[in-house]
Amino acid sequence: MTDWFSKHRPLLDKALDACARRYSWSGWPESPSTKIHGEEKPAAGQAAFEAMLQADFPLTQPGEVARVGEEVSPYTGEPLGVRYPRPDPAPLFAAIAAARPQWGATTPEQRVGVCLEILQRCGEQLFANAHATMHTSGQSYVMAFAGSGANALDRGLEALAYAHKAMADVPATARWERSFGGDGAACLDKQYRLLPRGVSVVICCATFPLWNTYPALCASLATGNPVILKPHPAATLPVAMVARVCREVLAEAGFDPNLVTLAADTREAPIALQLVEHPDTAIVDFTGSPRFGAYLEQNCPGKQVYTETAGCNSVVLESTDDLAATARAIAQSLCQASAQMCTSVQNIHLPADGVRVAGKKVPVAQVQAAICEAVDGWLAEPRRAATLCGTLFDDAVLDNVQRYRELAGERLLRDSAPLAYAEFPAARTASPLIIAATEADRDLYRQEVFGPVSFIVANHSAQGCLDDATSNARECGAITSHVYSTDEAFIDAAVEAYHAAGASVAVNLHGMPINFAAAYSDFHVTGLNPAGNACLADLAFVTARFRIVQSKRMAA
Amino acid sequence: MTDWFSKHRPLLDKALDACARRYSWSGWPESPSTKIHGEEKPAAGQAAFEAMLQADFPLTQPGEVARVGEEVSPYTGEPLGVRYPRPDPAPLFAAIAAARPQWGATTPEQRVGVCLEILQRCGEQLFANAHATMHTSGQSYVMAFAGSGANALDRGLEALAYAHKAMADVPATARWERSFGGDGAACLDKQYRLLPRGVSVVICCATFPLWNTYPALCASLATGNPVILKPHPAATLPVAMVARVCREVLAEAGFDPNLVTLAADTREAPIALQLVEHPDTAIVDFTGSPRFGAYLEQNCPGKQVYTETAGCNSVVLESTDDLAATARAIAQSLCQASAQMCTSVQNIHLPADGVRVAGKKVPVAQVQAAICEAVDGWLAEPRRAATLCGTLFDDAVLDNVQRYRELAGERLLRDSAPLAYAEFPAARTASPLIIAATEADRDLYRQEVFGPVSFIVANHSAQGCLDDATSNARECGAITSHVYSTDEAFIDAAVEAYHAAGASVAVNLHGMPINFAAAYSDFHVTGLNPAGNACLADLAFVTARFRIVQSKRMAA
Repeated sequence: MTDWFSKHRPLLDKALDACARRYSWSGWPESPSTKIHGEEKPAAGQAAFEAMLQADFPLTQPGEVARVGEEVSPYTGEPLGVRYPRPDPAPLFAAIAAARPQWGATTPEQRVGVCLEILQRCGEQLFANAHATMHTSGQSYVMAFAGSGANALDRGLEALAYAHKAMADVPATARWERSFGGDGAACLDKQYRLLPRGVSVVICCATFPLWNTYPALCASLATGNPVILKPHPAATLPVAMVARVCREVLAEAGFDPNLVTLAADTREAPIALQLVEHPDTAIVDFTGSPRFGAYLEQNCPGKQVYTETAGCNSVVLESTDDLAATARAIAQSLCQASAQMCTSVQNIHLPADGVRVAGKKVPVAQVQAAICEAVDGWLAEPRRAATLCGTLFDDAVLDNVQRYRELAGERLLRDSAPLAYAEFPAARTASPLIIAATEADRDLYRQEVFGPVSFIVANHSAQGCLDDATSNARECGAITSHVYSTDEAFIDAAVEAYHAAGASVAVNLHGMPINFAAAYSDFHVTGLNPAGNACLADLAFVTARFRIVQSKRMAA
Repeated sequence: MTDWFSKHRPLLDKALDACARRYSWSGWPESPSTKIHGEEKPAAGQAAFEAMLQADFPLTQPGEVARVGEEVSPYTGEPLGVRYPRPDPAPLFAAIAAARPQWGATTPEQRVGVCLEILQRCGEQLFANAHATMHTSGQSYVMAFAGSGANALDRGLEALAYAHKAMADVPATARWERSFGGDGAACLDKQYRLLPRGVSVVICCATFPLWNTYPALCASLATGNPVILKPHPAATLPVAMVARVCREVLAEAGFDPNLVTLAADTREAPIALQLVEHPDTAIVDFTGSPRFGAYLEQNCPGKQVYTETAGCNSVVLESTDDLAATARAIAQSLCQASAQMCTSVQNIHLPADGVRVAGKKVPVAQVQAAICEAVDGWLAEPRRAATLCGTLFDDAVLDNVQRYRELAGERLLRDSAPLAYAEFPAARTASPLIIAATEADRDLYRQEVFGPVSFIVANHSAQGCLDDATSNARECGAITSHVYSTDEAFIDAAVEAYHAAGASVAVNLHGMPINFAAAYSDFHVTGLNPAGNACLADLAFVTARFRIVQSKRMAA
């Protein structure tokens, strides 16, 4: 077997260093530009994607009972026609059980090496993956290449680095000598072995199918657990492509490919609960709706459950020196990926008596207008709008927009409208809908509204903004929170208030995409509010995925 | 505030090194001998213990509704008469909630420093603690001094070292710079803060009240969580003494003493579930019966539950070069602390056609006799017997012995009898009861029988011994498992079989107390069989006790 661990060791070491010092670094290219990659690779990626359409996806797995495939491109409205294996859980788990012992007995280094090779090979299919992600999740090509490519692989490598660190913390052997006085003396040779917990089920989401998948896959597989990938029916192809790479790499290294399997299902006949409840399943990673996430957190006793769901992410805009720049930063979040990101801002809190701008109070109406204008600014150039907004992954998102449009009534600040993409005239799109709100509308904005719907909430005071936003974080969840203020005392109070609510907070982010969560640097999800219990990535994300057994033997 | 972190740093560093290399080391003296300590300290310890009797224990805690105390010395049969505060949970949790923010905002180093000082001060009351442990748990003076003293403190320091390591893995700050191409550039200053999960309830057991308590206390308190110590009604005094030290140290350092509280209860009106189910409680550490442990594992969704319960620990005796030495090693386990240890051997498996001794088959009856004789050998000298066996902590243990004595009938190999302790004529004691069994008796030995009751099981073959012992470990739990064999192939197979059952294994331990589990070296409890889900101590024991929040701010 190739010594992938040694081969990829520099990459792993770099990731470990980046995690320890938390600077900016990426192991993969973020730009799909032909200036970097040339013409051939991007074209080959597109061709590879197109070759997969209208066909059975090439995966031969045990227990296949049917081929299923419901994906419809949000860009073309056409079914992709890719058909994936739907397994019968019984033979699937039986095949996995047969694969487990060899993998469990493999050294941590070998397993980490296999995972590094998997990430590397997934890195080689980023162009095909970008098209697969576009036409399932609805992301733009650029976002699909970066966010579902480099950024997602980085998250995977980050989790792998933590898994390696946690496993390396346990030595393989030790010698232990002591006297027990009158009760004798002993010299023992000890061996410590890391054992996996059991089958790991990874339930992937529709809008970012790989961002949480690589981390869960790497964390579980490296620690010895077989992994079942359960993609969303709307976004199966990117996950299937990863499953195929995993199985190829495993087989090439002499392991049973059934250590990683794909379990495709349909909306009509979901399979997730059957997988989760199977007695062999010991670990569940879930990304998706707060409702199912909370169900899993509460109803899987004895299993390790890691969730990332959603919340109502907030901005508190107390004061700024540059309203246009602030509005532009916020507006970008409302537009990016049509606000289908877990880091998208939903609620923008302003003091009802106005926002201080360079020392002067600017009325709420003017701030509302600045944000709406900034949104228009981002959308002015159609190509840029397309890259920024992408499409809506599902009709349900469009329905959401429509529902809130009706609810808004006179509170409508900015209406949503379709975006025109020259390349894809049938694309399902919606520009940001922005609604004015006061504390009387709390029921409206105190829940995640999935998609490009946001609220500009006029609270009774700056402190009221903070109280509202932080109590929402505490009670309804938050993944990102932003404060804009020029007042150091207010900033300090805001940081404390968000932390007390179990939320992280970003202060005065300008001139960058504020939705961006950086692998190796940003701890993503705190686990202290309802938006999920798992952090990408920390030691807690990996340490409970394996256990330690030991043998000790009296030395001769 | 004293810089306890710096003061005790060498001790912490030594513990970290011992954990990493897993050699033998102890931070405290294991022997109570006056040759080491002089006459004064031991006498002062005994006097301190006696001064606590027949009095209210000096603890002033919020929400006290009654004084309770049910302890009866297993040595004298006399009530200790110490009365502890029984709290009303509502005001107790309210007071704890008031104490939380300051502790949560303290640096990890300060909290670790406080924990180190607590351990050091507990180390100064080891003599008093030994008497308190004797007269509650029933341990012998020597065992109470070492096992509930140095060995327990070492486990606490070990857990503290892991907590420190896990927290130190997260840097306090980072600078993060990158360009987003057309989307701008950023330079962010990031701050990472570790936040506690919530209230930590530590449910202590009767027979080793501190061995699991120090680790849980240190792991939770160091990571910022307030701790409620819930002692067993039969063994409250040692825990109360720790609570008092914690509260003194906290107060001295300027913290709210209510960060560590004692919640005493009675058998009639237990308080544990009220504490566990309180919404503020986020962490539960439990040591005790498999039944309650399993209940907690299954019924505390969303809370971190760490358990150590019990199993039916086994010996597989396939072959030996020295039957007398092997019998002596096993017999010591049957005697030590009257087999009330979580590491005590219960089931001794022999091949029905005999055990190979120095190459020759010795019939089962002869091996049975050797073990019984070895037990008699350990008990021959009354002073040594008293030190080795101690007493039975509760009448229920005596009832157990009586019940199995009746069940044994003709299978009785060695009858149990009271032990005569010159110093304590009223001591509740029982020498080991040994019962012959075959696989037909599986129902009898496939459960933990608490106390000095063991089974010598004649299995159909050596492989049958292994199959029986390992399936019992897998299904009924095991904390320690032993193999005695001179056959390398058998040893290898045994190690694999126990590991496959989720159990650790010791091979050919002779001339030392085989029950001994070494802090910093032996990973205690695997979490892969029903004997518990928590390991003393590994990273998984500590990493989920805190979470990370961050603030990031655009640099000027």
